[in-house]
Amino acid sequence: MQPAMCSGKLQTGLLVAGYFVYLLVGAAVFQALERTAEKQEKIAAAQMKEAFLQSFTHLTVAEMEQFMKVTIQNGVYPVGNESQTEDSNWDFSNSFFFAGTVVSTIGYGTLHPKTAGGQIFCVFFALFGIPLNIVFLHRVGKMLSLLCKKLGKFLYEKGMRKKKIKFLTLLFFLATGILVFLCLPSLFFQITEGWSYSEGIYFAFITLSTIGFGDYVVGKQPDRIYFSYYRTLVAIWILFGLAWIALLFNLLTTVLEDTEKIIVKDLHQIGKC
Amino acid sequence: MQPAMCSGKLQTGLLVAGYFVYLLVGAAVFQALERTAEKQEKIAAAQMKEAFLQSFTHLTVAEMEQFMKVTIQNGVYPVGNESQTEDSNWDFSNSFFFAGTVVSTIGYGTLHPKTAGGQIFCVFFALFGIPLNIVFLHRVGKMLSLLCKKLGKFLYEKGMRKKKIKFLTLLFFLATGILVFLCLPSLFFQITEGWSYSEGIYFAFITLSTIGFGDYVVGKQPDRIYFSYYRTLVAIWILFGLAWIALLFNLLTTVLEDTEKIIVKDLHQIGKC
Ligand SMILES: [K+]
Ligand SMILES: [K+]
Repeated sequence: MQPAMCSGKLQTGLLVAGYFVYLLVGAAVFQALERTAEKQEKIAAAQMKEAFLQSFTHLTVAEMEQFMKVTIQNGVYPVGNESQTEDSNWDFSNSFFFAGTVVSTIGYGTLHPKTAGGQIFCVFFALFGIPLNIVFLHRVGKMLSLLCKKLGKFLYEKGMRKKKIKFLTLLFFLATGILVFLCLPSLFFQITEGWSYSEGIYFAFITLSTIGFGDYVVGKQPDRIYFSYYRTLVAIWILFGLAWIALLFNLLTTVLEDTEKIIVKDLHQIGKC
Repeated sequence: MQPAMCSGKLQTGLLVAGYFVYLLVGAAVFQALERTAEKQEKIAAAQMKEAFLQSFTHLTVAEMEQFMKVTIQNGVYPVGNESQTEDSNWDFSNSFFFAGTVVSTIGYGTLHPKTAGGQIFCVFFALFGIPLNIVFLHRVGKMLSLLCKKLGKFLYEKGMRKKKIKFLTLLFFLATGILVFLCLPSLFFQITEGWSYSEGIYFAFITLSTIGFGDYVVGKQPDRIYFSYYRTLVAIWILFGLAWIALLFNLLTTVLEDTEKIIVKDLHQIGKC
């Protein structure tokens, strides 16, 4: 076998193995972390249901309303949980927010099309919207990296060595980004949404990484009052945050690919494959 | 103002305008499509709740169970809707599936961590898992584009012109991809999940684009029997499909960026900005 071909196969094999090991380890940790808490919640829910089914013929309307409220809190947002049928989840502000979750591929899913027409339109809307969003984020990303370059130029003029400059601009990119796009917003969400700090970090990261589970969404708690422009502020945070995290993932991807190459090279020299 | 600087600003302005117009148009269409259907659903739900609250003191346990079932169908999966507390949503198969939805950034959200530990782990798991997944998909994407290159080489040897070859390989990439990753899987889901064909296309695209609303998920309907290896087959489809759609989005991004450049150039010549 030719060395180049062999090296390529080794690299692919290593990548596949690493990828699956990563997923397997992750699955095991999630299971270990979540299983017990979930079981307790299930037992409590089953007991509540049991108690309810035994006594529901004696309940008052107020108690029934309370039960429905708790049920909804444990589940998600069924369409019928707000008694006002005049309010629409598809008002323009929500529709716009939804369109944003489509093109950014965050896709929280707290709102999603249910009609066949809406679903098919959504496919075509995303087909061209996602590349458009990528072009847009490229531009924002360039603006952000320009800041880093300006810092580099400033340090170069101060007579600093190139290697040190590279390290310092990278540190600046990481530290400022983590502060501005993760830590400060989490503090902000702690105040506006009443989440814990770790929930804030979790929400911020799940949003900016475009995973978007939809378990936490901003501005959606019925018992809280939000200031006007709250959503606009969040949208700006998301736009710049998405561009920053794309740069971060780019960086990490390069690091991973370089590491892989080094490992393959080392393995080669040991085994003379 | 220097021409280059002016051109750059014009380009950015055009992009920002285009992006927001795209989102605004999308929002308007979604609203038009979804609002009426949602209102009808809300009215029906409100009537059901009304009727229930008026008569619940006369209901039998069976009727109550039926009500709960419908409520759950309209909402999502609350933890307590399965009476067996032994079964866990976090069994290994589900945990593995969840880990996959994290690193791919699909993030359906039908399963998500609720403990502080699980949430914080999820952040770090995604931080390195997403770049790893990107590296992995790069490799799969290279394999797929190799197929196109082989076709190109074959046509070149047949003495075809370069421009025609480029067009044909592109057509092959698009047609085969749409068939293999969207049309055929939708047909398959129509049979296995009982969805309509348009629902199948919608699910396939929402998954592969990594939007992942979580409104449709495979293998989760309690009243259907799935063959073993169903999920494995779906996982393979997702892996190759993600790589294919990444190539497709790359292509569309390039087309958009080129179009933008041409528009800016034309505007320049008209306005002599
Ligand atoms: K999602
Ligand atoms: K997503």
